[in-house]
Amino acid sequence: MLAQPQRPLALTIGEPAGIGSDITLAAWQQRTETNLSAFYVIADPDHLAARATQLGLTIPIQIVTPEQASTAFHTALPVVPIEERATAQPGHPDDSSADVAIASIRRAVRDVIDRRASAIVTNPISKVVLYRRGFTDPGHTEYLARLAHEMLGVDAMPVMMLWCKTLAVIPVTIHVPLSTVPQLLNTELIVKTGRIVVRELTERFGIRTPRLAVTGLNPHAGENGTIGDEEATIIRPAIEQLGALGIAVRGPLPADTLFHPAARRSYDAALCMYHDQALIPIKTIAFDDAVNVTLGLPFVRTSPDHGTAFDIAGKGGANPASLIASLRLAARMAERERAPAPAP
Amino acid sequence: MLAQPQRPLALTIGEPAGIGSDITLAAWQQRTETNLSAFYVIADPDHLAARATQLGLTIPIQIVTPEQASTAFHTALPVVPIEERATAQPGHPDDSSADVAIASIRRAVRDVIDRRASAIVTNPISKVVLYRRGFTDPGHTEYLARLAHEMLGVDAMPVMMLWCKTLAVIPVTIHVPLSTVPQLLNTELIVKTGRIVVRELTERFGIRTPRLAVTGLNPHAGENGTIGDEEATIIRPAIEQLGALGIAVRGPLPADTLFHPAARRSYDAALCMYHDQALIPIKTIAFDDAVNVTLGLPFVRTSPDHGTAFDIAGKGGANPASLIASLRLAARMAERERAPAPAP
Repeated sequence: MLAQPQRPLALTIGEPAGIGSDITLAAWQQRTETNLSAFYVIADPDHLAARATQLGLTIPIQIVTPEQASTAFHTALPVVPIEERATAQPGHPDDSSADVAIASIRRAVRDVIDRRASAIVTNPISKVVLYRRGFTDPGHTEYLARLAHEMLGVDAMPVMMLWCKTLAVIPVTIHVPLSTVPQLLNTELIVKTGRIVVRELTERFGIRTPRLAVTGLNPHAGENGTIGDEEATIIRPAIEQLGALGIAVRGPLPADTLFHPAARRSYDAALCMYHDQALIPIKTIAFDDAVNVTLGLPFVRTSPDHGTAFDIAGKGGANPASLIASLRLAARMAERERAPAPAP
Repeated sequence: MLAQPQRPLALTIGEPAGIGSDITLAAWQQRTETNLSAFYVIADPDHLAARATQLGLTIPIQIVTPEQASTAFHTALPVVPIEERATAQPGHPDDSSADVAIASIRRAVRDVIDRRASAIVTNPISKVVLYRRGFTDPGHTEYLARLAHEMLGVDAMPVMMLWCKTLAVIPVTIHVPLSTVPQLLNTELIVKTGRIVVRELTERFGIRTPRLAVTGLNPHAGENGTIGDEEATIIRPAIEQLGALGIAVRGPLPADTLFHPAARRSYDAALCMYHDQALIPIKTIAFDDAVNVTLGLPFVRTSPDHGTAFDIAGKGGANPASLIASLRLAARMAERERAPAPAP
């Protein structure tokens, strides 16, 4: 018996020319040994079937409604079809790519809002391909936040967390030039981010009193002000504000000594000041199966921690480990959402 | 039988109130099982003996000349005495601390220059304590470079490399505020650093054609110029210059995906643009036994990758793993220096 949440997970197909189809097919094949909860993928079923053939896989595909997905999942890969036709060959996105990727995402958000799906898992998209079709959001996550606003009227501040079994990291600033990090960093941003993280670790991860570790910006966390002052002027005030809210928080801590195994056991999540400070440690220890979790949205959303990998799409070498980890974590978070943790 | 280089290693005592004595005693105790080459420590013998007593250790200490150290090493911890008396209690540096630390370093450099020692291994010092006594160099390494100039007339550009068995990283900029890194970084600095690294990996590590990986400064190495331009304006020109010198070099590479096990096997050393980019990965995977290697000096110098740890000095909890790794690596590098690799 597979453990299953009441509702299935909605999985987007991502960029049709990328490895989304490959890893979706592989994840479904491994559903029993990896103990996956039921999911359905939102895709052009013919394109997906063609990819299976290209990969030499014999995988039954069943066109379903979300309500039929959990039952179908045992014996076939459930596909909720979209109207758009995908025509791209592996590795070669074409004019249909963006429309398919977008339609899949929109449908997933609709389904989770309508409570036909328990959570969203997204396959990787190509921003360049979307931009060519007039896409204007900075990225996947911001687009999801905009859809949340459009469909629910909710103003969400999405927060990216990278998660693996022994580490959760949150970059406070993300895809910005390193030279702009010191200007972009501010106390309010750190406090807002920390509050969202703590709320979701409590509600969606079932951690009663989440322990936050906050890094410094500078080497050795500034070494008492001798190597930069952002620790004193920006980060420490944020830590004090978070502490005043009753949050278990420590820092600013030197980032280099924060991620070895013993250090990792001392906190539930590390707030890091910029992209590489957060992503270097987690990709060093969990390159294959780290999960990108978006906190702060009105629904659960996870995503594999890699890109479209055009170079290996359709060739059989794509590793589904991160997608499988994403599906497992989304199910766990959605499960938790139905049964909230007791108040502290 | 212990494998021994002809000449012993010179080990400085470091800050007398720190854990230098503790880990030196522990390393000597573990000399057989860790297959250590002979070393002598340059210290106040009475202070070292007192620390052994404080730690409840019965360790024979033998006052020696460097020439006597290798023989003595089998049965006693060889100490080359300095005139200065150390009076500091564990955890509490006093006025004698800086003089002892400095005298030990000067003697070590003298011995290695006079070829009485094969290499220098340095225990941690406290810069704050030294500054109080009028020390003016930015740090330990710069002081060694100054002594090299003073005693040999050599103008050395010291380069810090952090080394463990599966990773070697070099921060091109080091103990500077993160906000100054983009200004401090320049093509010439990267090229100079890379050349020193390649030369020493060849001569002192016996790697015939060292493979360098060079990180980007920005997230995803700037993602083709959409997240910062230092990759195009500073880093790529440096890589081209290094390549034109016949060096096997790749980059600029996204730092977050450069340090997982498979990636690490693709290069011999990673040139990183700033402190945390280099130190986060190595301290994440080898917190206890990473070694700080100074390249570019006219002698071999290694050092444990931790500080004085005043809080645990004299209490018995100090881990000698990084010192042991430093002694082993210094012996290996010194051995190599005597038997240069065949020309490529």
